[in-house]
Order: sequence, then C-alpha cells, then structure tokens
Amino acid sequence: MSDFATRLAQRMNRYGPLCAGIDPSAATLAKCGLPDSAEGALEFGKLILRSADYELAVIKPQSAFFERFGSAGMKAIEELAALARAKEVPLLLDVKRGDIDSTADAYAHAYFHPSSPIRVDAITLSPYLGVAALKSSFELAAKHACGIFVVVRSSNPEGEALQTARMADGRRVWEALCAAISDFNRALSAGPIGPIGAVVGATCTDAGAVVAALPRSFILSPGIGAQGATMEDCRVRLAPARGRILPNVSRELIAGGSSAAAIGATIRRLNSEARGLLA
Amino acid sequence: MSDFATRLAQRMNRYGPLCAGIDPSAATLAKCGLPDSAEGALEFGKLILRSADYELAVIKPQSAFFERFGSAGMKAIEELAALARAKEVPLLLDVKRGDIDSTADAYAHAYFHPSSPIRVDAITLSPYLGVAALKSSFELAAKHACGIFVVVRSSNPEGEALQTARMADGRRVWEALCAAISDFNRALSAGPIGPIGAVVGATCTDAGAVVAALPRSFILSPGIGAQGATMEDCRVRLAPARGRILPNVSRELIAGGSSAAAIGATIRRLNSEARGLLA
Repeated sequence: MSDFATRLAQRMNRYGPLCAGIDPSAATLAKCGLPDSAEGALEFGKLILRSADYELAVIKPQSAFFERFGSAGMKAIEELAALARAKEVPLLLDVKRGDIDSTADAYAHAYFHPSSPIRVDAITLSPYLGVAALKSSFELAAKHACGIFVVVRSSNPEGEALQTARMADGRRVWEALCAAISDFNRALSAGPIGPIGAVVGATCTDAGAVVAALPRSFILSPGIGAQGATMEDCRVRLAPARGRILPNVSRELIAGGSSAAAIGATIRRLNSEARGLLA
Repeated sequence: MSDFATRLAQRMNRYGPLCAGIDPSAATLAKCGLPDSAEGALEFGKLILRSADYELAVIKPQSAFFERFGSAGMKAIEELAALARAKEVPLLLDVKRGDIDSTADAYAHAYFHPSSPIRVDAITLSPYLGVAALKSSFELAAKHACGIFVVVRSSNPEGEALQTARMADGRRVWEALCAAISDFNRALSAGPIGPIGAVVGATCTDAGAVVAALPRSFILSPGIGAQGATMEDCRVRLAPARGRILPNVSRELIAGGSSAAAIGATIRRLNSEARGLLA
C-alpha cells in the first residue's frame, strides 16, 4: 500500500480537498430523522459516504460523538471504518489523544496496527505533553502507512494564549511544534509531504505564518462555517499551504437538507469551492 | 450522592491516598499470565480491585491500553466501572481528552452523564486548546458530582518547555492554568476542595510552586516508580499540597509478584508509605 500522504494527495486531486466531518451530535441526528444512538451515529456516517458516492478525499468522524454511546459507539466507528476501507475512502479519526511512553504507543497500536479492530488511516493528536513525546507514535504511523495530524493552532479563541506562548529558547509554542513536525517528516519520508500533518484553524489570523513553517505537511483546517471562517478566509490565510490544505466542514454538510440528494449536492458544491485551495 | 471531592477525601483518609493505576499493557498481562485481550485487560482490573479488598481511595485505568481492543476494550472499561461502582471505589479514567464546543460537551456527556454506558467518577483532560474551552466540561462534571484532573505539569521531560512557556501577559502556561482551575473550583464548590484537580508529576522540580497555586485541587501525581521519582520525592516536592495528593503507581503494583496475595501486600505497603502525604 502506498503511504498516507500519497493516497491522500491522489484523492484530493481527483475529488477535491474537502474533509467531510462526521459529527453525529444529538442535534444533527435529530435533523436527519435518525435515532440518538450508536446505530443512528453509524447510519449518519454511512449517509454522508453514500450521499457523496464515496467520492471524498477524506472523512473525519469526531470520536467524542461516538464515545457518548460507550462500546456500542466504538463498534459504530469500527463498522464505519470497515466501510470506508472497502470503498477506499481514507478515514481520519478525530480523537486528539496524547500521552507518553508505553501509553502513547498503545494509542498508536490501537489506531494504526493492522490487527486492531479500530484501525483507521489517520488520527489527530494533541501535543500538550511535548511533541517529542509523540516520536514513537509518528514512527508507528509511518511504519503502517498511516498519518497523524498534530493540533498546532486550534480554531477556537481560547487556545491562542497557550499556543503562541514563548518558550525559554525564544520560540513560540507553535514555532517549535512546526520545526519538530518538519524534522520528523524529513526523517520519515523521502517524498515531498510526510506522514505528519497539522491542524491549523481557518479562523487564526496568524495561520499564514504557521503553515509557512510546515512545508512538508498536509494542513487540516477547521473553523469553516459554524465557527465563522469562510472557504475564502482559508484560501487567503493559509496561502503558503495551497495544494496541501484540507478544509473541514461538518455541520454545514446538512445545511442544504438531509436527504442523500441534498447532502450530495452540498458536498459537490463545497468540493468545487475547495478546489480553489489546490491552485 | 456527595460530590466527588468529598467522596475522594473520605476514602483517602480511610484507606490511604494511593491511586492504583490499571495499565493492562501486553507486558503486564503476560507477567500476570493473562491473555493480551479485552478479557485479559478486564481480568487484570478486577485482580487489582480484589487484591486490595476494594480498599482503595481511587483506581485509574489507562484508556489507551483498553482502546487497543477497540469496542471490546471499551466494553471492558464499562464492566470494570460497573464493578467499581458496586464496590464504591471511585474510578478515574485516564483519557486525556480535550476539545471545544459541542465536542467537549460530548466527551463530558460520555464520561459523566448518568445514562451513559461508560460513565465514571472522574477523567483526565488535556488543556492544549485552552483551559477556558473546558468550562462547560467543568460545569458538567460538577453537575453530575464527578471530577476532572487537568494535566498541568506532566511527569515526562519533553513536556516542560511548553508547560513553562510564557504567555503574552507574562504568566507561564502552568500559572495561567492553575489560576483558571482555582477560579473554577471557587465558582463550582463551596467546599475547601473543588471538582477540578490537576496532574502534576512527582518528577517535576518545579512541582512545589505549581501545587502552591492550586489550593483547592486534588493533585494526581504520576512519575513514581518506573519514571524515577520516589514517594519521598512526591512528599518533599509537592509539600504545599499535602493532604490533597494522590500518588499514582501502576507498573509497581505487580513488582512484588502478580498473585492476589502479593498485589494486596504491595498495595498495603504503598498505601502505608503514601500516608506520609496526608500529614
């Protein structure tokens, strides 16, 4: 199997770079006439995939909305991941895990190892324990042809003070993260883009400087829609990363209606708009 | 039901303040002659509880070692939580989640709501997206008589640069976190200790200053044993928090043997040593 970055780039160019967020909240399930249960959450994920005719660069289920249903919710993720795999749609599971030593390895094993029931193509990680603590997770991702997106600059206003704080060596927290991620990508991949991507909010006014420091990463960009940024904000603010940006849209997928036809039309429109991020 | 802090304080005084970490790694399960499966992980958790005759202040299963087994691992957590609840042993699930808006609420719902299959007494959260983003999680914990431990200073060396970085207002990242946590505890509880605790590593040489800034929090202190700190390091370094410290021990629980008798003896010895943290 080709590596995660190669698979993702091929799909972005073929279908458009939209990342379809799958957030089965109680409110979203109600809007779709689905039960607020693990079965409803799975049906919602299948509905998004089917509505798009499986022509998506990547889908991003938000683990929290499945964890609400405990083990049954986790089973729904497993089934959704199996369907996505069968249809060759890369699945990025938004879990924002992050730990140290053998615990970090256990997370990487859970989400990347071919024998794991809940294996996916990529996950998000949170770097509060230090990006260097994630080294073996990065290595395990690369080994299994998977990817990781490290949260660098989040889309919410509450994250800015911490993420822009200055460390003892004078660098900002995000600067040090970007440098480490770029080093890991160089070490782990001979290709132009490595397995370690980053999350950079389209709402962040400093997003341009952040992504300029991540020349070998795919950029997952949340914040479009409900959080106030537009696709055009994303295109302008993240300009240095054009061709490597995955704009995430979740709640807006059903804004034009929750039938398969309506969701399909919304996704095609969003992917068409998002093609501006490839050029 | 009394609030989390009250329940925890009562048990700490009765049984000693040890937090028994339940980390069913492949290596630990092998040492115990248990299969490397969800069933083995559950059996390991039950073994720790039974060996201690359920006389523990709190147990802390590490979610990563259960997530390795996907939905079956999550089911094992549910069953372990049900047993702990029946025996009135508070369960702190080490998940280090952390997100924003409705996603953060979904995590709080998953782990605190009485109707959730995977409800527990407390969880750990990671604050990279900003402690203010966790506000509604804190409120939901308090509402359901549960607790949260925010990672403030982690026990690993890789975390220090980020956690001690200076924000634009001149405060270090950990200082701002401590101030916010203390404010939330004042707002959420009339008692001396609130529902929002903190994780502060016994390995951190600055742990004293950190816990001095958390006068209304329980302090979960990892780093003892395999990571190099001793119970005495914990007592000396975290002195300002005496009476409120939960020293976590995981791998060492089976260092004296993996029979129920041996684990029971090890836990009694550790709790006896840990009583020095109460005075």
